[in-house]
Amino acid sequence: MTTEGTHGERSWTEFCPRFHRAIELVGKRWSGAILRALLAGDHRFNELLGAIPGLSDRLLTERLRELEEEGLVRRDIEPGPPLRITYTLTEKGSELRDALWPLAIWAERWMTDETDPVKT
Amino acid sequence: MTTEGTHGERSWTEFCPRFHRAIELVGKRWSGAILRALLAGDHRFNELLGAIPGLSDRLLTERLRELEEEGLVRRDIEPGPPLRITYTLTEKGSELRDALWPLAIWAERWMTDETDPVKT
Repeated sequence: MTTEGTHGERSWTEFCPRFHRAIELVGKRWSGAILRALLAGDHRFNELLGAIPGLSDRLLTERLRELEEEGLVRRDIEPGPPLRITYTLTEKGSELRDALWPLAIWAERWMTDETDPVKT
Repeated sequence: MTTEGTHGERSWTEFCPRFHRAIELVGKRWSGAILRALLAGDHRFNELLGAIPGLSDRLLTERLRELEEEGLVRRDIEPGPPLRITYTLTEKGSELRDALWPLAIWAERWMTDETDPVKT
């Protein structure tokens, strides 16, 4: 094992529980795509469903609930009729805008255009 | 849905298959922690196992194989005896250093120190 873990003034330790939790939160199946859609703007449920190819009704519901529980997404209810529910990023979620951008650049450079998502 | 998807000169589209694949690749259970350990330096198998609390032998083997297949990790074999196998990041993997750093900063600010990883 080398001890080389620095890059300029940046250094990576071997393990960090917060990083571990964060990367598995945003990278969980479909969550990254949902967060990305919400970074592009607020969405209603059916708009999210339409924006993300292959995502099912059931999994969108499940993921939105998890992202709400983790404090990344807020559900705004505008009383009706008709009732309107909009999904919006909280401050915690919005700050992923800058946090995930370099990964989007990396993906642009290194990932292929295969349409199937990562096998799970 | 608002059309607000820009931040300075940065803009997020609703969906991007490369980003989708990338975030689920690095965020798959344990993969983020393994990549982080390798960003801190080359490791042998048992060193990785020791560096990541809770990771099993079987899952480490499986994840390393996937990361190799995706071209992020290289397996260097130094003929023995004793045979020495070292896991190293490829160029593609090394470039995650900068791509994931802002997420580490975000995690530092927003995630708690709970020891259990994200529920799956």
